[in-house]
Amino acid sequence: MPVNPNASIEITAFRWVPEFAQGLVRDLRARWALEEAGLDYRVRLLDQQRPPEYLLEQPFDQVPCFSDSEVKIFETGAIVQYIGEQTEVLLPRDAQGRYRAIQWTYAALNSVEPSLLQLLLIDVFYKGEEWATLRRAGAEDAARLKLRRVSEWLGDAEWLEGRFTIGDLVMVTVFRFLRHTGLVAEFPNLAAYVKRGEARPPFQRALSDQLAVFTANQPQPEGAAA
Amino acid sequence: MPVNPNASIEITAFRWVPEFAQGLVRDLRARWALEEAGLDYRVRLLDQQRPPEYLLEQPFDQVPCFSDSEVKIFETGAIVQYIGEQTEVLLPRDAQGRYRAIQWTYAALNSVEPSLLQLLLIDVFYKGEEWATLRRAGAEDAARLKLRRVSEWLGDAEWLEGRFTIGDLVMVTVFRFLRHTGLVAEFPNLAAYVKRGEARPPFQRALSDQLAVFTANQPQPEGAAA
Repeated sequence: MPVNPNASIEITAFRWVPEFAQGLVRDLRARWALEEAGLDYRVRLLDQQRPPEYLLEQPFDQVPCFSDSEVKIFETGAIVQYIGEQTEVLLPRDAQGRYRAIQWTYAALNSVEPSLLQLLLIDVFYKGEEWATLRRAGAEDAARLKLRRVSEWLGDAEWLEGRFTIGDLVMVTVFRFLRHTGLVAEFPNLAAYVKRGEARPPFQRALSDQLAVFTANQPQPEGAAA
Repeated sequence: MPVNPNASIEITAFRWVPEFAQGLVRDLRARWALEEAGLDYRVRLLDQQRPPEYLLEQPFDQVPCFSDSEVKIFETGAIVQYIGEQTEVLLPRDAQGRYRAIQWTYAALNSVEPSLLQLLLIDVFYKGEEWATLRRAGAEDAARLKLRRVSEWLGDAEWLEGRFTIGDLVMVTVFRFLRHTGLVAEFPNLAAYVKRGEARPPFQRALSDQLAVFTANQPQPEGAAA
């Protein structure tokens, strides 16, 4: 179990988030990559109301930040790539293999995630707003098109470039943003791909460690303290 | 002038796009990075209607793709990072400097671009649709918040991490998606930052080379051939 209070690697994470976000918060990506790499890490927990000085570490006020003895960085794409550089399990060493994996990491975050996240926002944050109701069908089509593109690329392969890399790690977590819908299930090869990623023991440990924090810090119902 | 029909580096680009997209199409990022690095490249032009087999090169049917004697990749983030690795002009060599730059490349594409592009889509592609009209003020606020975050980070500095890197190159091109609005001008340090990026001779050559293709391939008005 790489969570270790004395580790030199530190990531930030939230102490608690509402249920719809549990298992989606992005420190999951860093935890998963660290588990794949077998690197110990400690977690610095933040309240939903972050102190203003956190912006000096993370200008977008998000989690995770990452630090070790070499670097202090934010953005999960960069963090996962940095961890990936430390183990061939996550990132091939040859130029083509390496950059095909990096390319899919960027693709997951820039060509796929925005459309999928937009649908999640419409269904959760903006639910009931008139524009969101009017836009939902179009947003679903936009998300479906992205899924179709990846599904056609993947075909019968296990992973995007034949073997598991950081590109798959990030893509699987991006697809999880649609877990409240049946969209991924429309593409059986993508559904199997997500399942294959989630079945990896490092993913299971990462998820379980993220959720354990939320369980331990579950807010008490109003009046429970009285 | 790095555009050279005999170069071993090849990128794909569009033969022509409508005026609102001219100067925004993403091959601009690859061209700019190649100009900064002083690397010759040739351009393979594609019609707006791409052949179906282009999906085997670029699963999202976009430009640019990039190839040289070592790699064949897509996604501008990955392409710009790959070019960056070949010159310290774009990417510092020490771990911290290198990953701070990579982190801003991912941040530009994942934490900033989606909100800015959403506003561009509302104003151009979805203009007149009821949901777009209802959502516009909220989308503008979301884009403004991203600008504020970057503005506060940048402060009085010239570049995001003190010196120009691939992170600035991508961030400047992301901010250009708002050129049809006055939003960037609300943040004088960001407006100066974009101007500083655009004033670099490599940017000027990249932009001019992209636009020259569109001028040369401007569709003739209906009936002009008769």
